[in-house]
Amino acid sequence: MTAGARRARLVDALAAHGLDGVLVTTLVNVRYLTGFTGSNGAVLVPADGEPVFFTDGRYQDQAAQQLPDVEHVITRDLLGGAAERMGAGGTWGVETHTLSVDAHARLAERAGAIELTGAARVVERLREVKDEAEIASLRSACDISTRALEQLLDGPLAGRTEREVARDLENRMLDLGAEAIGFETILASGANTAIPHHSPTDRVLRAGDLLKIDFGARVDGYHADCTRTVVLGTADAWQREVHAAVLESQATGLELLREGVDVSASDVAVRASLDAAGWLDAFTTGLGHGVGLEIHEDPFIARSHAGKLSSRTVLTMEPGIYVPGRGGVRIEDTVLVTAGAPEVLTTMTKDLLEIG
Amino acid sequence: MTAGARRARLVDALAAHGLDGVLVTTLVNVRYLTGFTGSNGAVLVPADGEPVFFTDGRYQDQAAQQLPDVEHVITRDLLGGAAERMGAGGTWGVETHTLSVDAHARLAERAGAIELTGAARVVERLREVKDEAEIASLRSACDISTRALEQLLDGPLAGRTEREVARDLENRMLDLGAEAIGFETILASGANTAIPHHSPTDRVLRAGDLLKIDFGARVDGYHADCTRTVVLGTADAWQREVHAAVLESQATGLELLREGVDVSASDVAVRASLDAAGWLDAFTTGLGHGVGLEIHEDPFIARSHAGKLSSRTVLTMEPGIYVPGRGGVRIEDTVLVTAGAPEVLTTMTKDLLEIG
Repeated sequence: MTAGARRARLVDALAAHGLDGVLVTTLVNVRYLTGFTGSNGAVLVPADGEPVFFTDGRYQDQAAQQLPDVEHVITRDLLGGAAERMGAGGTWGVETHTLSVDAHARLAERAGAIELTGAARVVERLREVKDEAEIASLRSACDISTRALEQLLDGPLAGRTEREVARDLENRMLDLGAEAIGFETILASGANTAIPHHSPTDRVLRAGDLLKIDFGARVDGYHADCTRTVVLGTADAWQREVHAAVLESQATGLELLREGVDVSASDVAVRASLDAAGWLDAFTTGLGHGVGLEIHEDPFIARSHAGKLSSRTVLTMEPGIYVPGRGGVRIEDTVLVTAGAPEVLTTMTKDLLEIG
Repeated sequence: MTAGARRARLVDALAAHGLDGVLVTTLVNVRYLTGFTGSNGAVLVPADGEPVFFTDGRYQDQAAQQLPDVEHVITRDLLGGAAERMGAGGTWGVETHTLSVDAHARLAERAGAIELTGAARVVERLREVKDEAEIASLRSACDISTRALEQLLDGPLAGRTEREVARDLENRMLDLGAEAIGFETILASGANTAIPHHSPTDRVLRAGDLLKIDFGARVDGYHADCTRTVVLGTADAWQREVHAAVLESQATGLELLREGVDVSASDVAVRASLDAAGWLDAFTTGLGHGVGLEIHEDPFIARSHAGKLSSRTVLTMEPGIYVPGRGGVRIEDTVLVTAGAPEVLTTMTKDLLEIG
């Protein structure tokens, strides 16, 4: 789908909100609607008429290249520039979930008689359902991530530090064609695996360690998100038990990631599975989230989420067990929701690997 | 300076604003005031009494380690948790420059009779003047960056792609002890150098190219920011002219980066220098910015900036000339403001290097 087709979907959504248009200032939404990859931009999308893109002088050439078919205005004052183009009246939506209180006040002052109203997460809603180009990028990012981890786990790891091993994995992703690392790799060993979001340290990996790796490549702006937990040497009974409980709970949840099912259903099922195994209290994070241009985006899987899943939504599912001082296991996949079983894009094995 | 001493400075600043306290929700400000390095946190700093830190379950252990002397509350609803601890009345400052319209509305609802007022950039103001620990981290980040670039430019570059050379530089920074790359390296060759913020491509470097490298290491959360422009092979007359004009303008500006001088003075001087050389229209970016926990932070050097420089402020100065279709030159240093001449932390030579 082209950026223009995405804007057409937004215009359709605007009609439902009774708006004369929307000013999109959330950078990732601007990218989605225009293809612009710079660090400062906004786009005004009227219900009737042509969009106008705003950026500053640094991005003049880039805007001309990336948005050849959209009028662009070069200005240091994006909000002021946008207010001028809203016309003399009417009701315009603004992204109140990201627009700061101060920016909103400046915009309202410049907008004069125009009424500004919240259009929070309207573009995020559209982004929940991926088009073919997005799915291709996500698939590529997940493939690269899988191959990089497979390569890494083929080599010897004991005796190297968390930091060294994390860099090794990141370099492999870049060698395999990632445009960038999707997020700072969480690579934890030994008792550090009990920390859900652990930054790699100089701790040396040794036999008997759990090794938890949460990582992902970025391709065309799209993120992979994958976690595997393995054992260096031979797994002990506790490690096997915890790994099996997490894997079982994830399988239970994956069953429920399909079109038309409540978003909350997998959360309920995973928690029930962990509860039955006696580990519910040790699951201290969220279960999953949408993934795309952002590493964490709508929809977020939670018991309180009222909606239903749509086909072509891409989500993570990442149950875990974390026992402070002892260790933890997380297993996470990026999956594509369909009318049937979800397609797991991160195809690396989930068996409990015992590695060198 | 400890995080506690920084909070004491904030409490002093609160008195001047007549506030009962401030709720700090900007993550980098939270880090500055507490040492917390996770991705979700807030800290309530009362004018009288002890601070309270808020984060979610993922960061329970990390909060205990990083904030042993501050009460912390684990909650999924940071704003709600904070509202509960503001007490029954009074006036509290909130960071309206980053707090979204929607988050502010939720907070106001929970805060009941408490009046919320804008305390925008209060912590950013404090952060403009660095303490010894911060300067040490910045110095280290700049040293690593300088050494990495010196190493890179010692090796052969012609025949390699922009992307390959950028990765080489990044790996050298990590090898030299950077905790991370400070920002995505801007490495541009040939006509791409005319794009101020260019992402590395598969273009192959060849003799006669300008090569512009804007890069920096991160150490303890603190960023280096440095740009050098060199020539592959032998520089032609145009390349020499443009490089000399940028270098001359930067020298003019650096003279004016000292305590008590108007922040705007260097901007005026650099533009006058470029104007005299006939290149003012080709300088299309800002001249400089504070650098620290953020790669771009207060103060921003601009003609419109009314304040004066303080000692121990760390700034970049980065004039450039950009000629679309032909090429560009930028020279950028990270410098420490003192009562005398500024200390240039990025000590790499600024001579026009002609490299292999």
